[in-house]
Amino acid sequence: MNAQTTEKKQLAILGSTGSIGTQALDVVRAHRDRFDIYALTANNQVDLLIRQAIEFQPDSVIIANKQHYQKLKEALASYPIKVYAGSDAISQIVQSEPIDIVLAAMVGYHGLRPTIQAIKAGKTIALANKETMVVAGEIINALAMQYRVPILPVDSEHSAVFQCLEIHNPIEKIFLTASGGPFRQFSVEQLERVTKEQALKHPNWNMGAKVTIDSASMMNKGFEVIEAKWLFNLKAEQVEVLVHPQSIIHSMVQFRDGAIKAQLGLPDMKLPIQYAFTYPERLETTFPRLDFSKVASLTFEKPDLTRFPNLSLAYRAMEQGGTMPCTLNAANEVVVEAFLQDKIGFMKMPEVIGKTMEKATFRLNPTYEDYVETDSESREIARSFLPN
Amino acid sequence: MNAQTTEKKQLAILGSTGSIGTQALDVVRAHRDRFDIYALTANNQVDLLIRQAIEFQPDSVIIANKQHYQKLKEALASYPIKVYAGSDAISQIVQSEPIDIVLAAMVGYHGLRPTIQAIKAGKTIALANKETMVVAGEIINALAMQYRVPILPVDSEHSAVFQCLEIHNPIEKIFLTASGGPFRQFSVEQLERVTKEQALKHPNWNMGAKVTIDSASMMNKGFEVIEAKWLFNLKAEQVEVLVHPQSIIHSMVQFRDGAIKAQLGLPDMKLPIQYAFTYPERLETTFPRLDFSKVASLTFEKPDLTRFPNLSLAYRAMEQGGTMPCTLNAANEVVVEAFLQDKIGFMKMPEVIGKTMEKATFRLNPTYEDYVETDSESREIARSFLPN
Repeated sequence: MNAQTTEKKQLAILGSTGSIGTQALDVVRAHRDRFDIYALTANNQVDLLIRQAIEFQPDSVIIANKQHYQKLKEALASYPIKVYAGSDAISQIVQSEPIDIVLAAMVGYHGLRPTIQAIKAGKTIALANKETMVVAGEIINALAMQYRVPILPVDSEHSAVFQCLEIHNPIEKIFLTASGGPFRQFSVEQLERVTKEQALKHPNWNMGAKVTIDSASMMNKGFEVIEAKWLFNLKAEQVEVLVHPQSIIHSMVQFRDGAIKAQLGLPDMKLPIQYAFTYPERLETTFPRLDFSKVASLTFEKPDLTRFPNLSLAYRAMEQGGTMPCTLNAANEVVVEAFLQDKIGFMKMPEVIGKTMEKATFRLNPTYEDYVETDSESREIARSFLPN
Repeated sequence: MNAQTTEKKQLAILGSTGSIGTQALDVVRAHRDRFDIYALTANNQVDLLIRQAIEFQPDSVIIANKQHYQKLKEALASYPIKVYAGSDAISQIVQSEPIDIVLAAMVGYHGLRPTIQAIKAGKTIALANKETMVVAGEIINALAMQYRVPILPVDSEHSAVFQCLEIHNPIEKIFLTASGGPFRQFSVEQLERVTKEQALKHPNWNMGAKVTIDSASMMNKGFEVIEAKWLFNLKAEQVEVLVHPQSIIHSMVQFRDGAIKAQLGLPDMKLPIQYAFTYPERLETTFPRLDFSKVASLTFEKPDLTRFPNLSLAYRAMEQGGTMPCTLNAANEVVVEAFLQDKIGFMKMPEVIGKTMEKATFRLNPTYEDYVETDSESREIARSFLPN
């Protein structure tokens, strides 16, 4: 394929003001000849959204929080950009005919509905919102199959696995690497006293607050295990989490002959984002290259499930299936918010999630409505375990 | 593809009694439903060749050293196996119509002629004899192109690179990993006193004597650099040697977006041998799997060209091209033999090779005849630098 004559891909960036969204726009900025922005959506950060809209001149911008609508509308009044507000508008815009790829980069459960709508409209999904797969992987997979839509992972771990796949050869198992987060070597006692400020400092990756806390508690890795199950059609025993503090090996695939393939490099989310946008092609980049003479050593440890019980909870939810991962996610969203508001301690989070999983109504073969109900019931149960 | 209905591949194993050859037969033994042995050839080890012939019942066996012909003939008299002797017979047998794949696993320059004949007969080449590419990569590549013959690497490093390739994406660079051999941390003074017995003990790989010495002197890695150039169409600056003492990462490919892919696992030559036989498919194996909890750490160093001048000599030969790599190889075969006969010390080897490269007649765009002439002239020159 000749880059000069390739038609530009039209992108919708859902969550454009977040960590993934802004890095996606960095990718687009570096390859204007390959991509056009059709739509940008954000939750609350209206000022940044305005700047992005002026720079990228999309067809449409949407602010989920309607309180910011007026400000957005006025700021873009002199541009030929359509302005909308509210989450319904997001679910509608993704269906627009010119869009080729929808980057689902919102945080949490809210990514689910627009992703479903985008799949139904036949859009290629670049999936950064792992909660979508955690909550509703069964439905997402069925829809992707029905509408013949590729779901391309953006998470660095899943992108690494995806980059290592071979058409002819099934996966024997995958190794999802985990940095272990800032508290890798903390004792349970130390973990109980962890502050929000400590938890928000991740050693290797620069991410949003929710993902950073999930990363410190290893719930993020638990979600990734479930996401991997659905993305690559794996059983629980085919997914092994490997603590690899240097975050150089982004994940690995073992094939049935015993060969292992890994994707590695400096931690930089722009690479998996770009790969999802250009797959199967890779575009030239000026990203810094890994210098192996500066890599002191690469190490691996088994994760400690006593200190990081979220990982066990995630495996349990995955093995039970049905609505259990949805409950896991809902309870986690509640406890992370409570932790960020200094309402509960760090080790209280897995405790509340575990209790919620025991109490919530369990449904096998859930419909979309079941997920909605489970999500709201589970949040209520989780909240009931929090201090007032 | 269904294994039950797949036609068996007919193999010719050149060098069946060597390290690669015997491991190739292990692979065949584990997958009798997939492979038949059409021909086995050996240089001198007639007893082992007889046992292999009786076990695998090939159409033909050939012993290169004619002194052993009578013994071989008599031992197999009661079997329907054709028996030949001499190197001409090897170059003829590879052209037999039923053969699908020729495994070129002889040691040294002698691998060249039968490999050329096999290519001209349209056989897929599983290439373990790296000297073939070192000496005559230019001709081998041209022939492979002309006869539309795939050349599948069997060296663990080149197989690793091959396993990481992507159809859509050019290679930016490759990292050929090197264990560093048994003398990785020796000083020049220590290296000068190295004995044959020390050099024959490789820390990670179990190989034949010639390859083990080449490995200790890093000439093996130099050859692999040149082999990689021809196999993957690379420039000198696209091939970086990385000392990686644990031999877990077998080699890596960096693409133009900066992503690096590696193939890793326990050091076991059966895996790359089998992969060459079954490519693009991977067969299930019972090879032990890598247990990352037992991998203490993976480390990387730049090679030391002062202590291991062979690597510089190889890069220089590659950059000069023409007959220079052929001279490099010829001189190396002479000095390794002399070292194994206790005629010269370890550090004398690179010295003689360097002097031979300065003195040998240099030809650009060589023909096969030029290689034959260069090889014999270079051996003579190298011998002139040896003590009587």
